[in-house]
Parts: sequence; structure tokens; C-alpha cells
Amino acid sequence: MGCLDEGHFNVELENGVSIGCALGVEEDANTAAIENAVKVLLLGLGEDINREGLRKTPLRVAKALRHGTKGYSQKVKDIVQGALFPEAGLDNKIGHAGGAGGLVIVRDLNLFSYCESCLLPFQVKCHVGYVPSSQRVVGLSKLSRVADVFAKRLQEPQRLADEVCSALHQEIKPAGVAIILQCTHIHFPHIESVFLDSTNQGSIKILVSSGSGVFENRKADVWIDFFSLLKFRGIDMEKVHFRGSSDLCWCPSLSAKISSKFVSINPVMVTAVASILKSLGEDPLRKELVGTPSRFVKWLMNFQSSDLEMKLNSFHCNGMNSLNSNGEVSLSNKQICSELNLPFWSQCEHHLLPFHGVVHIGYLMYEGFNPIGKSLLQSIVHFYGFKLQVQERLTRQIAETISPLLGGDVIVVVEASHTCMISRGIEKFGSNTATIAVLGRFSTDPSARAMFLQSIPSASSAGQ
Amino acid sequence: MGCLDEGHFNVELENGVSIGCALGVEEDANTAAIENAVKVLLLGLGEDINREGLRKTPLRVAKALRHGTKGYSQKVKDIVQGALFPEAGLDNKIGHAGGAGGLVIVRDLNLFSYCESCLLPFQVKCHVGYVPSSQRVVGLSKLSRVADVFAKRLQEPQRLADEVCSALHQEIKPAGVAIILQCTHIHFPHIESVFLDSTNQGSIKILVSSGSGVFENRKADVWIDFFSLLKFRGIDMEKVHFRGSSDLCWCPSLSAKISSKFVSINPVMVTAVASILKSLGEDPLRKELVGTPSRFVKWLMNFQSSDLEMKLNSFHCNGMNSLNSNGEVSLSNKQICSELNLPFWSQCEHHLLPFHGVVHIGYLMYEGFNPIGKSLLQSIVHFYGFKLQVQERLTRQIAETISPLLGGDVIVVVEASHTCMISRGIEKFGSNTATIAVLGRFSTDPSARAMFLQSIPSASSAGQ
Repeated sequence: MGCLDEGHFNVELENGVSIGCALGVEEDANTAAIENAVKVLLLGLGEDINREGLRKTPLRVAKALRHGTKGYSQKVKDIVQGALFPEAGLDNKIGHAGGAGGLVIVRDLNLFSYCESCLLPFQVKCHVGYVPSSQRVVGLSKLSRVADVFAKRLQEPQRLADEVCSALHQEIKPAGVAIILQCTHIHFPHIESVFLDSTNQGSIKILVSSGSGVFENRKADVWIDFFSLLKFRGIDMEKVHFRGSSDLCWCPSLSAKISSKFVSINPVMVTAVASILKSLGEDPLRKELVGTPSRFVKWLMNFQSSDLEMKLNSFHCNGMNSLNSNGEVSLSNKQICSELNLPFWSQCEHHLLPFHGVVHIGYLMYEGFNPIGKSLLQSIVHFYGFKLQVQERLTRQIAETISPLLGGDVIVVVEASHTCMISRGIEKFGSNTATIAVLGRFSTDPSARAMFLQSIPSASSAGQ
Repeated sequence: MGCLDEGHFNVELENGVSIGCALGVEEDANTAAIENAVKVLLLGLGEDINREGLRKTPLRVAKALRHGTKGYSQKVKDIVQGALFPEAGLDNKIGHAGGAGGLVIVRDLNLFSYCESCLLPFQVKCHVGYVPSSQRVVGLSKLSRVADVFAKRLQEPQRLADEVCSALHQEIKPAGVAIILQCTHIHFPHIESVFLDSTNQGSIKILVSSGSGVFENRKADVWIDFFSLLKFRGIDMEKVHFRGSSDLCWCPSLSAKISSKFVSINPVMVTAVASILKSLGEDPLRKELVGTPSRFVKWLMNFQSSDLEMKLNSFHCNGMNSLNSNGEVSLSNKQICSELNLPFWSQCEHHLLPFHGVVHIGYLMYEGFNPIGKSLLQSIVHFYGFKLQVQERLTRQIAETISPLLGGDVIVVVEASHTCMISRGIEKFGSNTATIAVLGRFSTDPSARAMFLQSIPSASSAGQ
């Protein structure tokens, strides 16, 4: 694909900036097909596809998906070729080193991939080991690049590990290759269950492995050497899945029970997602992909546009008016109350990609006075989370909604991880966003703000 | 530059794979000029530029440098344009949120830049904050992309912070922008001093900041909000340099005292580096760059090829022969001895980029028998580190050299961070490489290996 597969989807282009290098006709057609499918999805969500935040979303989604699946058009041979270097080893009788038997390990390669079951990106921390033979070694960065070729496809952790392993084995022809992947999948909440039960927060993690040659046997001593140098990386050897050791079913969409009365699957949207799979070069009839379009639509429908008024009326007059009118009460009479780490899920309206994290709410209240409970605050957070959103708006909407309920002096902090900062061309793993909204006294009193902000625990950072 | 500045230097191209999109004539000429200059440098180091590992090094270095300085040809306007979104705020009288005054923070953006004083890459952890105004916000990823435009140039931390700050202020027109950069520069060892004193290991770190608008005044309350949400990120507000607060002189090459009797600067090499600066679009006569070519050559000369025999003869017959011939001694008679965390510096011969970390050495020895001291082992490590190297070879060479001195049963583990895995198109921040060489009993006895490997402390991981 020439320069196309490399840079085209990487950078500014998502905003429609013209590019110097003409798109191939086929790529043009595929991108346009994905754009059209995304428009169908947005309409199915009840959105106005012409509003400012969504106008370029179809193009952004098309670029992101094509970037995230560019591995389909990459060849491992092209990457490894020219990066095999002669390197002396030792006489086998005296030991193993260098190009003959000296174990080489590259740890902590951050990648992302797309889940073939639900089409959401998942994160991968990849550890690669290989035992050189024939007096040659491979350039270290190639281990990362080859892993990325297979990560940038629709995947499932075990297959990803197996494909990286066998590709490296075939191209490097070493004594053996070992792959360990720590995969992290966003939890798959359902709007009805999450309002009832907020315990299913966080992520689903899985550890898979694959081995070839001297690593073929999972009991081989060389695995112990490998694991010894992976310790303290959260890897428990006992918890690693070896190839064929179990039927994995890690994607939460596969185990999710969705009551049909809440979610009706729009067949037009399902067809649109199937057409996206086709445009990416996949076969929508491949066994593992048959249910993917409807699972993706189910996920999306969590975030459908809703004009329903929130049923907060019953809480409105709970003594708040007297507090509201009493704006000059000194801070010493009131105390800062807080609800920290309320989880939320949302969907970035610019990229149709999830962002999730926690909300911290602070308010000033007379001691012992607790106007509304944590569960209502959590419901309000979910209500505004389950939409196509931007984090700044989510923060403001929560603050505006709770302010009259909590006396008007309110601070809301949202901490989130954005998938759109990891997938696409950005790949800023570990980056993390915070937004703040302040009302009443919190907007004018820096010490009240500081007191609240300092009470936020560090571990909260966006559910990582 | 169209697609050229984006993808061209990103991926497989370093191995000379042909590209579909033709290089511009000027870019061709610049790349060729850098290649020629790199050949001059390799020859100046006493290397054979036709040996396998070095044959494509000039091209790789040219691609890496052009990728690492592509910011010169990027425009902030192109990046931000089209990514400003209307977003409602609050009435200013009641508070601040969303597109009017709601602080937005993106934390932990990993970047790298090139030090203008010595031409080595340095790592940057970037934290950006801004206060929206005029009812609009910017796409979060643009904060990262704009920071990257200025990081991908020859830089100095404070100027980098200032440039990112003022570019964001100008394009977003917010109420204010705040930038905090945690910069990490590799230590700049000198071959003569490091043999005498191994305490100057690790990295040089600096914290700089820049603020505009409401962040212009470093005492402004909004800085406290920002810092509150950066806590637990190793940021001590007291240690942050504010613009103009001091004359920074962070690059260790500026403070290094090099005795001229050890290092003579080859003027042909200096001229070659100056021509590289010119090819990257820089002015080699710019005040801050005038001394850069000679400083880079000084750095490089640490790694010159040397055929000198190591002066290890005096240690050779220290009772080792009897041990060597006694190969069947049981493990229970000998014990595993180790020297852990011996620091090293080296230079990747494929990319002329530093890699550094620690070496762990294990050997079997009768109790109380200590044939050679830690300082000799450290000297051997430095001897093989200060060359154009690959980690696999370094590991083997150390093992081969110490094996006869330590009785033949030897294990060497090298843990390293490779700059070439961070700069260039890879950007695998946090990745880390381990290589192992085993001789004698360590190559046949997995339990001896496991015992040693498990004694390696986790904190050792490659001096990060």
C-alpha cells in the first residue's frame, strides 16, 4: 500500500485536511462506505448528524478504523527482511549466548487491538522472548512491529498471541519464540443493569501465552527463565492461559444478558456494521464475526440520544431552597461533603469510542445534613454518561443537575481514560484526562476547591 | 509536506523497503546529505562502514533524525483547525464549567525530543491544562499533537514548554494554558571518568512549566487546581521551574569537564554533524547550536572502536584453572555469588542511539572465595559497553571475558532501555529489553539459573 498504510490515517487528516498523496480508488471507496455506515449508526442513535460535534464523526471513525486494522495489508516479511543481523554465539558445549541460544526478551510493549466479538478496542501489554539460532539476531524493534501487524486487526487474545508467535518463528527461524499478552477489555455495561448495580466497574483482564520451538512445551525450563524476568509485572504464571488450555470467552459482550425489552436491535444498524467489517477487508460471515455487528449495535444503543426528563422532581424541594438563599453562610458553618469515585461509561461523540472513569462530587453542607444519597448521584452520573458525549459537557451537565439538589455550592471532577487517545494514530498509552466544573462558593473560594481536590485519592485515576 | 511528514519515516522504511509515494527532491537530497555525514562519523569512530550491522546505519540514522525533527514542517493551525467544538458553559455569575472556565487537564502524555545541546533524544512526560472560553473546547488529542509538533525539534525543556503553551494559546484562544514537562536526559558519561567513578549513573531530570492568560501569574489559584490533579505523579510544585526563574543548564554535556588529553575532537566529524543540523532545517550558527556538533562528537567518541587487548592478564591465573578443570563439583559445594546492578552505557550500532541499563552477573564459587572484585567486573562491563554495540553481543562478550576469571560457571543478564525503541516511529515508551548468556553449569542446570534470576531485584529494570 505504499505510504498509504503508514501515515495516511495517522495525524491531522482526521479533520479533513487535504493530503498530498492521492488515495487509491479502492481505499477511497472503502472509506466512503464506512462513513455512510457510521451515518446510519448515528441516525439509529437518534442523533442529528449535522450538529457540529458529529459532522465529521463518520470520517473520523472511518480513518480510525482503517488505521486500527491496517495490519491486514502489512507483510511480516517486509518488516523483518533486512533486520536480521549476523551475531556470533558460543560453542554449544560451553554455553548459550548471542546468536546461538542467548535468550532475548523485550518487555512491556504497549499495543492496542480490536475485539472481534464486539468491535471495541482493547489494550495489550506484550512481552516477547526468543532464543536466537544460526548465529543471527533480529533488530529489537521488529519484535514490536511484527506484534503490531497482528494487533491491528480484529482479534481475540489467544489468536493474537499465536499469530505473532508463528510469524516471528517463521521469519526469524530461531530456536523458539514465546509470547505473553496481558489484555485489558473495557467492561461492557448495560444501561439497565448498571443503574441497579454499579459493582461491575473496571476492566476485564486476561493473560495468554503462545510458544514455538523450545517454548512449544509449556513445562520447558526456558519458560521459567522467561517468567523470572517478567516478575513484578503483574504476571502470575499460574494464571496464564496456554494455547488450547481452555476455551476462552473473555469479551464481556459474549456473556452479557440483555433483556430484549430494553434493547431492540435495529436491523439497519446491524447491516451497516456488517458493511464496515467488509470494508475493512474482513469476512462478516467468518464464524467469530457473525454476531459482532449486533453486539456492537447493542453496545452503541447504550448511548442513544434521549430527550427524557430526569425524574428528579421528588428530590427538588428537600430543604434546598433555604440553603440556596443563604449564600453568605461561612464555610466554617458548612462542611465539605464528597462522593468520590463514582464510575461512569460514556462514548466519545467525535470518534464513537468509549471513554470511562470516575466522577468525584463535592458540596458544602451543614454537618449531618445529607439531602440525597450516593445512589441518586450515581444515577445522575450514569444518565449523563450513557450518551454520545464529550467529557467537558458531561462534567458541566452533572454539575448543573446536582447543584440545585445540593445547595448550589458544588464541585465536580471527572477523571477519564479515552480510548481515542490510545487507538487511532495517537497511542498515548497511560494518558488521562481531568475536567472540573465549579458552582457557587467553589467557583470563588480557592481554598474550598483545594481542600476538595486534595481529598481525591490517587488510585482513582480513571479506572486504570 | 502532504503525506510525507506523517508516515514516511514511521515504519518499515528504515530497512530500505520501497515506498509508493515518491520523495520530494529536496527531501531526497537532505536524507542523502545526512547519510553521507553519518558515514564520516562511523569512519571517525574507526568502524568498517561495510560490515553487516553498520551497512544500513547511515540510512537508519537519517530516517530517524528526519522523523524526530518533523515538527519543523508541521503547522499548529492545520492540527487545531476543525477540532474546535462549540460547548456551552455556565453563566459566569454562578460558576465555571464546560466551554466557559471549566479547567481541562490532559496528563501523562509521553513524548520525546532532541536536546539541542548534544543532539541526544530526551524523554518528556507532558501535562497540559487549559481553561476554555468563548463557549468552545478543543479535541483532547490535539493537545498531544500540538505538543508533539514542538517536541519533534531540537529543543531545550523551557523553550519546549513555552512554545507549546503559546501555540495552544494562540490557536485555541482560551482563558489560559498551563504546561508542565517532566524531562529526562540520559547521563553523559565520559569513558575516563566512568571507569574511575560509577556513581554518576541514572538520568538527569528537570521539571519546567509555562503558563499563559490566567496561568501567566505563577501564584494564580488556578495553578493550585492544576497541581492538585497532578499529585502522585512525582511532581513537587516547589521544584518546578517557572519561566525566567533561573538559567537552566540541564544538559550534562554542558557541564562535563573533558580532559583534552583523552578526547581529541576530529574537525571532520564536527563538520559532518553541523551539516546534519543544516539538513534538518536548523541553523548551525544559532547561538544554542554552535557547540552542539563538537559535543555530539565528544559523546560519540566514547564509543570508538578499539582493538586494544584488555589488561586482564594479571587476574588470569588466580586459582581459576583448578576450578575450571573441576567441572563436576556439585552445586551444594559451591554457592551462587552475584554482582547485581552494574550500570553500563552503550550505543546501538543500528541507529547510533544510546542504550543503557544494568548488568547482573552470577557465578558459582566455593564459599568465601572471591577471585575478583566488583570494580574489575564493572570495568569489564564498561569496556564492552563503550562501543557501537548490540545488546546480544554485549552480553556474550561480558560472559566470555569473565568466564575464565570466575571458574567457567557464569550467567550474565543485561537489562536495558533502548532509545531506538522510543524515538523514531516506534515510541514504545516503557519497553525494556533483557538478554541472557549462560556458561558452564548455568547452561545445563535450570535450577541454578532460576535461583540466580530470582535474586535480581525488580527495581533494577534498566535504570528507568
